[in-house]
Amino acid sequence: MKLAIDAMGGDNAPEAIVKGAVQAADTIDGLEITLVGDEAQIKPFLTGQSNVSILHTTEVITADDEPVRAVRRKKQSSMVLTATEVKEGRADGCISAGNTGALMSAGLFVVGRMKGVDRPALSPTLPTSDGKGFLMLDVGANVDAKPDHLLQYAVIGSIYAENVRNIKQPRVGLLNVGTEDGKGSDLTKKAFDLMKEAPINFVGNVEARDLLEGVADVVVTDGFTGNVTLKTIEGTAMTMFSMMKQTFMSNFKTKIAAGLAKNDLRKLKAQLDYSEYGGAGLFGLAAPVIKAHGSSNDRAVLNAIRQACHMIELDVTNTISATLSEMHKEEDES
Amino acid sequence: MKLAIDAMGGDNAPEAIVKGAVQAADTIDGLEITLVGDEAQIKPFLTGQSNVSILHTTEVITADDEPVRAVRRKKQSSMVLTATEVKEGRADGCISAGNTGALMSAGLFVVGRMKGVDRPALSPTLPTSDGKGFLMLDVGANVDAKPDHLLQYAVIGSIYAENVRNIKQPRVGLLNVGTEDGKGSDLTKKAFDLMKEAPINFVGNVEARDLLEGVADVVVTDGFTGNVTLKTIEGTAMTMFSMMKQTFMSNFKTKIAAGLAKNDLRKLKAQLDYSEYGGAGLFGLAAPVIKAHGSSNDRAVLNAIRQACHMIELDVTNTISATLSEMHKEEDES
Repeated sequence: MKLAIDAMGGDNAPEAIVKGAVQAADTIDGLEITLVGDEAQIKPFLTGQSNVSILHTTEVITADDEPVRAVRRKKQSSMVLTATEVKEGRADGCISAGNTGALMSAGLFVVGRMKGVDRPALSPTLPTSDGKGFLMLDVGANVDAKPDHLLQYAVIGSIYAENVRNIKQPRVGLLNVGTEDGKGSDLTKKAFDLMKEAPINFVGNVEARDLLEGVADVVVTDGFTGNVTLKTIEGTAMTMFSMMKQTFMSNFKTKIAAGLAKNDLRKLKAQLDYSEYGGAGLFGLAAPVIKAHGSSNDRAVLNAIRQACHMIELDVTNTISATLSEMHKEEDES
Repeated sequence: MKLAIDAMGGDNAPEAIVKGAVQAADTIDGLEITLVGDEAQIKPFLTGQSNVSILHTTEVITADDEPVRAVRRKKQSSMVLTATEVKEGRADGCISAGNTGALMSAGLFVVGRMKGVDRPALSPTLPTSDGKGFLMLDVGANVDAKPDHLLQYAVIGSIYAENVRNIKQPRVGLLNVGTEDGKGSDLTKKAFDLMKEAPINFVGNVEARDLLEGVADVVVTDGFTGNVTLKTIEGTAMTMFSMMKQTFMSNFKTKIAAGLAKNDLRKLKAQLDYSEYGGAGLFGLAAPVIKAHGSSNDRAVLNAIRQACHMIELDVTNTISATLSEMHKEEDES
C-alpha cells in the first residue's frame, strides 16, 4: 500500500504532516509513504523510517492561489506532484492539507474521475451529539449540481459509510426544506425520485435542524448548499463558544464556574472538532484523495492517512465504480 | 392605523396572541386591532379595550395542513379572514404566528404582490454576537429563485433595514461559498452582477461562517439556501445548548459551576433567541404581513405588532415599490 502525501500543505506544514506520516509509517503494516516537498524542511522531522521516502520540490501552492490556475501553472508544486504520483501508478492514493480548491482541481485534472461519476464530491464527516458523526456530500466541489449528481453522491456516500465507517445499511438522507415527500426545489424533487429507486437505505428528506442530532449517516446535497451548511455549523459553533467565553469572564461568580468546568467544557469543544473524524474525502476520483483539514495537527494527519489506507484496503473505489455501472446497466435495460 | 391579527395561530394561541395584542392596544397611539378567531376563546383574555374588536370564526388552519390547499379550502379560517381584512382595506397590515407556508400562500393569493416584485420573500431578523442582528431574505418563500429575485430582495431588505431598523446605509451582502468576486453558482454569479449596479450599499459576497459575527446588515440568498441556513443555525445552537447542559450535569464540580453561572448562561441563550427581534416579514406583498414565530409568547407578539406598525407608519411598502419602479425605468431607458 503506497501513499503520496503533500508535505507542504496546511497551516502546520511541514512539521505536523511529517510527524503524522512518521507515526503512520511506524504503526500501519505494509504502508509506504512518499512525502512530497522541500527535503531540507522535511528531513528534520524524520526519524529513520525505511518506508518513508522524499520526492523533493520547492514549488508550493498557497492558500491564496487561484485553484485552477495554480494547478495548471505550478506543475512542480508539491500538491501537483503528489497527485501525479497517483496518476502514474506510483501511489494508490494521496493526501493534502493544502488549498481545498486546488486539491479538487488536481484531483479532477491530474488523478481523474472514476468511470460512472460525472462530478466528484467533497465529503467531510461532521460531528453529531452522539459522537457517531455523519458524512455530508457535496460541500463544495460542484456548486451547480444536477439530480443525477445527487444520486451518484448518495450511492458513493452509502458505500463509503458501509465499508470504511462500518455502518450497516447506512441511512441516506436528502437535505431539504421539509421532511415531507414532494417538498423542495426542482433539484431536490427530482433527486428524491431518483434516490427512491437507488440500491441504498434512503430515509427521505432530512432537515438542517436535525443534522447534528444524527438524523442520517449520509446527507446528500448540492455543493452550494453543502458548503453554506458546513460553514454555518462552523460559524454558529465558533460564535457560541466565543459568547460562552465572554459570559464566563463576565463576573467573579462565572469565573469560578469557568475554573470548575474548564476541562469538561474543553471536552465539549473536542466533541465538535471534526478533524477527529479524519479528512474530507474527494469521492468519485479514480483513486482515494483525502483533504486533511487546513489546521490539521499530526494526529489529524494520522487519522487522514488511516482513512486513505482503509479506502485502499477495502477497494472502495472499485466497489463504487462497479455499483454505479450496474445501475447504469439496469437503467439501459429498462 | 389598523391591524388584523390571527388570534388562533401559533403554539400559545389564543392566550399569548390576545395578551400581546392587548399590550399593544394599551401602549401604541392610534392603533386599532381586529382579532380574528373564536370569540369564546379570545374574550377571556380581553380587558375592555375600546380599540380591540373581534371578527368571529371557528375554522382554523393547523400546523399540519398542506399550505396551498388549506388556504384555498379553508376560506373561513382565522388566517384567511385575517388576510382578507387587509385585501378589502379594513386593515393596513396583518400578523399570524400560524403555519408559515399557509401564511405565505395567504399573503400571495389573498393580500397579493406589490407592483415590481416577482416573488415575495420571507425575512426574519437573526441574532448576531453584538446584539444588532441581521436581516436574511429569503428563508423559504421561493425555493427556486432567479437572479432578478435576489436583486429585488436586496433592494427590499436594504429599504426595510434603513427605515424600520434605522440602520444608515445598511451593508447588503450576498450569501456565497467564498468572498471573492466571481465565486459561486450560476445563480449567485448573475445576482452579484445585478446587485453591483443596484442603489444599495452592496458589500459583495459573504460567507455563512461570518453571519453571526454581523458581517452584513442584510443577507440575500435564495429560499432554499436561506431555509437550510436558518435551520442549521437553529439546530447547531440547540444541539450545543443540550450538550452544554449534559456537560454541566456530568459531575459534582460541573454542577456547582452550573449553579454559579446559571443566570448568565440564561442571558446567553436569550441573546440567541430571535423572536426578540420581532417576527419575519413577508416582504414584497401589497401590505405588511408579519409571521410571528410559532412559539411566540405575548412579548414576541407585541414585538411583531410594533414591527408591523413601523412598516405602516413609515410607508415601507410604497417606498419599496417606488424604488423598484425607478430601477425598472432606468433599465428600460438604458
